[in-house]
Amino acid sequence: MENFELLGNIEPTENFFESIKSGKSLFAFVISYTETCEIPGITFAGADKDSIQFTPPADAEYLHYGYCKTIDQIPMTPDGKPTPGLLTKTALESSSIPHLTINAGSKISPQLPFIETGLSFGKNISVEDAMTDSQVSHAVDFGRIVGRSLASLTDCLIIGESIPGGTTTALAVLKAFGFDAKVSSSIPDNPIELKNSIVESALKRINSDHPYSVVAKVGDPMIPFVAGMLSSASDVSNVMLAGGTQMAAVLAFASKIGFNEENTVIGTTSYVTNDQSANFTKLVQKITNIPILSVDPGLKNSQHSGLKAFSEGFAKEGVGAGGSIISSMLKTGNNSEKFLELAEKEYLRLST
Amino acid sequence: MENFELLGNIEPTENFFESIKSGKSLFAFVISYTETCEIPGITFAGADKDSIQFTPPADAEYLHYGYCKTIDQIPMTPDGKPTPGLLTKTALESSSIPHLTINAGSKISPQLPFIETGLSFGKNISVEDAMTDSQVSHAVDFGRIVGRSLASLTDCLIIGESIPGGTTTALAVLKAFGFDAKVSSSIPDNPIELKNSIVESALKRINSDHPYSVVAKVGDPMIPFVAGMLSSASDVSNVMLAGGTQMAAVLAFASKIGFNEENTVIGTTSYVTNDQSANFTKLVQKITNIPILSVDPGLKNSQHSGLKAFSEGFAKEGVGAGGSIISSMLKTGNNSEKFLELAEKEYLRLST
Repeated sequence: MENFELLGNIEPTENFFESIKSGKSLFAFVISYTETCEIPGITFAGADKDSIQFTPPADAEYLHYGYCKTIDQIPMTPDGKPTPGLLTKTALESSSIPHLTINAGSKISPQLPFIETGLSFGKNISVEDAMTDSQVSHAVDFGRIVGRSLASLTDCLIIGESIPGGTTTALAVLKAFGFDAKVSSSIPDNPIELKNSIVESALKRINSDHPYSVVAKVGDPMIPFVAGMLSSASDVSNVMLAGGTQMAAVLAFASKIGFNEENTVIGTTSYVTNDQSANFTKLVQKITNIPILSVDPGLKNSQHSGLKAFSEGFAKEGVGAGGSIISSMLKTGNNSEKFLELAEKEYLRLST
Repeated sequence: MENFELLGNIEPTENFFESIKSGKSLFAFVISYTETCEIPGITFAGADKDSIQFTPPADAEYLHYGYCKTIDQIPMTPDGKPTPGLLTKTALESSSIPHLTINAGSKISPQLPFIETGLSFGKNISVEDAMTDSQVSHAVDFGRIVGRSLASLTDCLIIGESIPGGTTTALAVLKAFGFDAKVSSSIPDNPIELKNSIVESALKRINSDHPYSVVAKVGDPMIPFVAGMLSSASDVSNVMLAGGTQMAAVLAFASKIGFNEENTVIGTTSYVTNDQSANFTKLVQKITNIPILSVDPGLKNSQHSGLKAFSEGFAKEGVGAGGSIISSMLKTGNNSEKFLELAEKEYLRLST
């Protein structure tokens, strides 16, 4: 327990801890895309505009193979900071937690076996609706099917995501549902004004308070899909949403379509929960009454600037890093020091 | 045990029975396609040449939804005999065994979430190579990935398939590997001469005894993919190959690439093991030393000619029906009479 903090009003049940410690858990990695990420300055998830679309499949390939197939290197920022997938991979591998990739609207398919949903990527919410209502309905329905299938095989289903630009669509969805959200960013100087102006123009298009319509206008395909997964999976299994801001938006929408709070937790990094420009913990508490788990991956003590950057406001979260680290610590008993050692080993492997 | 027969030299382990009775099992349904099925008279798996390609995705949709989306009705022969998927669905539903569809070369994608492998369908082996060597290698590699992932979530992985025309490619692969195979058919009057002449012309193209090359020339994508699944899954979990002739071909190829015999069984219907035009039990015994389970679904006692047809030589097996029924009986304790009652109920649901 010393490895992570429990925030929020509610503690996880003993059953939740046991499900990860001695049960079967699975990391479901949902990749998606919103054209909102193509707005200059909105994301760091990729070296440039053209390469951003490769980040989600490349993250999936890296998690699986340890290298990427659709691009030459693992996803990096222009100045060489690695994808948070590095933390996820370190966590999952050290704890032998299996993973499965789900394509819920990625522009590019990963070069590995993955669950296909037939969902299209989301449009740029600053200029047009993200999706049609019927696409949202498809996303929820297929999310429910996948969630039910995977939950029936696991004691705890851990869900992570990769959708560049996703914090902006998350912010729009949260605001549309009436939450005073301030969201984190992959960029240390959170481009809050840019995000707010995009969100404002998107919110103007909302003309119905039906949750499907709201998400269709200002969301992205990941949000209704993961909400659908949560909705069915939490009926039969424990679920950990692994992520920050974007999973808060999933919770906001899932609260509208229904899910079992008693079997649900959210797990993220301390870089998100301590982010002074955001209000993650209070936000989640306002949305729903579930346990909030926060882990300090200990990267501030890294000797490598690429890893240390995470503790200095870069990326903060993504590819379900926080929830994966929490799960791996529960399963292996590792602490932050041990995790840092493993992450540095992986970092060195990638650097040579 | 009274519900099915144990054939072959070896009995399943207690661990195998337990894994289905009290563990987590999963039915992995692999859909594929070979243009060989377009040869007139070769298969009954579809009402006509143009509709055959819809049979695998339609089977997947029927298993999942209870109705089809890509076609109006569930797959039927011209005279109205239903897909063996009816038996599979009855079995899985009565025992709450979850399923997952895998597209390993189907011409048409099913309208549900499925595991995508990026494999192309196989070509008509009577006139050209089914695949390239590198496609076979892709199929084995991706099969291994999927097998490992699914096996890590299950105590017993049950693998079924749907590939129209697949008994002909199976016959070719078995003969190419030196087995004196006589295979079953979906057609009561097994078109043996037609099959043999197709196989003969296919075998002439073989110019290397490398197993990948052999399967590339005369096989289909399902065979190397499922062999890959078996190869990795049998390392960590029990595996039941649910099928007849086609799973025998999978075993022949899997013997070349390696798999764990101790964790593997094959399960099929008595319509296959009693088929006088074929030699299933002896064939499997020659290929590998694994338990052979055969179940009599009891359909000869059905009051509905569409169901009774299965016991009269129609279809015999397919969509993993035999293995699914065995698994469901192990899990629920149901016998053939109870199974027939449930199958008739499902048959009536479809007929009204």
